[in-house]
Amino acid sequence: MFIGRITGSIVSSQKVETMVGQSLFIVEPLRVNEKDQSDLTPTGRSFVVVDTVGAGQGEVVLCVQGSSARFTPETKTLPIDAAIVGIVDQVHIGSNEIFNSQEK
Amino acid sequence: MFIGRITGSIVSSQKVETMVGQSLFIVEPLRVNEKDQSDLTPTGRSFVVVDTVGAGQGEVVLCVQGSSARFTPETKTLPIDAAIVGIVDQVHIGSNEIFNSQEK
Amino acid sequence: MFIGRITGSIVSSQKVETMVGQSLFIVEPLRVNEKDQSDLTPTGRSFVVVDTVGAGQGEVVLCVQGSSARFTPETKTLPIDAAIVGIVDQVHIGSNEIFNSQEK
Amino acid sequence: MFIGRITGSIVSSQKVETMVGQSLFIVEPLRVNEKDQSDLTPTGRSFVVVDTVGAGQGEVVLCVQGSSARFTPETKTLPIDAAIVGIVDQVHIGSNEIFNSQEK
Amino acid sequence: MFIGRITGSIVSSQKVETMVGQSLFIVEPLRVNEKDQSDLTPTGRSFVVVDTVGAGQGEVVLCVQGSSARFTPETKTLPIDAAIVGIVDQVHIGSNEIFNSQEK
Repeated sequence: MFIGRITGSIVSSQKVETMVGQSLFIVEPLRVNEKDQSDLTPTGRSFVVVDTVGAGQGEVVLCVQGSSARFTPETKTLPIDAAIVGIVDQVHIGSNEIFNSQEK
Repeated sequence: MFIGRITGSIVSSQKVETMVGQSLFIVEPLRVNEKDQSDLTPTGRSFVVVDTVGAGQGEVVLCVQGSSARFTPETKTLPIDAAIVGIVDQVHIGSNEIFNSQEK
Repeated sequence: MFIGRITGSIVSSQKVETMVGQSLFIVEPLRVNEKDQSDLTPTGRSFVVVDTVGAGQGEVVLCVQGSSARFTPETKTLPIDAAIVGIVDQVHIGSNEIFNSQEK
Repeated sequence: MFIGRITGSIVSSQKVETMVGQSLFIVEPLRVNEKDQSDLTPTGRSFVVVDTVGAGQGEVVLCVQGSSARFTPETKTLPIDAAIVGIVDQVHIGSNEIFNSQEK
Repeated sequence: MFIGRITGSIVSSQKVETMVGQSLFIVEPLRVNEKDQSDLTPTGRSFVVVDTVGAGQGEVVLCVQGSSARFTPETKTLPIDAAIVGIVDQVHIGSNEIFNSQEK
């Protein structure tokens, strides 16, 4: 899985019927800063994901890719390859907290 | 999933029998501009995808990859790893609309 | 799926039993030229694929990757992750024909 | 599969119900040093994986990706695309031992 | 599938129970030399794969990735995403033999 930030959303009125009513978010994957591992840095990539946990704009989330994106009650039969399966509260590297959703 | 623009199409007369009659489009993935996130920029990559929603040349579409490309009524038994599952009307980053299919 | 050119083949006498008799081709993926989109350019990568349509050395073919490579009558039970599912006759970008198998 | 080091962990209180109670580690993939193949070097990438073998912070582990991450008793129904399936004791390149979990 | 050379192996005593007794090799993918296509060159990447054909250190092998790695009698239920499915005897590019396991 990967950690990403919800940066936006897309609107699609003409789509596969099973997709009607699904929230389609744009997520930018984050990675642990290579230099000193002190924070999460953006990767510049863009993924479109379906939300299954009630996440919102700006939140840092846990995303799953591939066939496993269909292993939630809401997404079982959807033609999707990426889904949000959790909202990230904290990220720790060793004993340091490098991300906390309550801050900033 | 990823957002892409339909740039072309391919013709293949000798192919797997289940593929007869399928529209094969070439799609170039787009990503949110890294600098100021004000528009979608091309990535220079090329994918061949099957259309399931009646999309056409030049349109911006939502594409799914992998086994999930088979999770639509039209593609259930096809040997395909990528399909168009929606036509994109708008893309928002934060509160900005960075793409609208009605413009330009 | 991706478009590629068959550049070679491999011989393997000691292999998984279900693979006996399968043609194993080396394919180099092609992509639409980024500059002016006027032709297909090689990517320098190498994939080994199983042929299901009777393609041959030098031909430009349509390849599928992942579990969907098993969705043809010939490959249903094979341990393969890539297969040729069509021979490409023409590629169009917008209204330009950028590849035609009859030429050159 | 790939070899990686557990560098951290994430906390997610709001998540898909089947994920409750699962350990979510951050793993940085390692690769054999290209120059002289004398050790494992970090790749700078970050993956989130589910642990199935009782691994801990700092350990070098074997990770599986994709649908196969669901092929353990603990992960059968989880929406995950990466799991730890072993703790690495030693890595050999040719006749050299380039990693031993007992050292350092 | 991809062609790779077995460069090493890993030892893991604490692992998923179904993995006990499996040979875990490190494979470095090779690709056809981009310049003149006269030989196979290493890519610098590292994969861990399960052997199903009795391959050994230094051999050039054919590897499959993803769910298809489970499509051999030995790997059906394993949590693996890569397996050796053949030993490569020869590689031809056009009419040139660029690799022969009997030489050197």
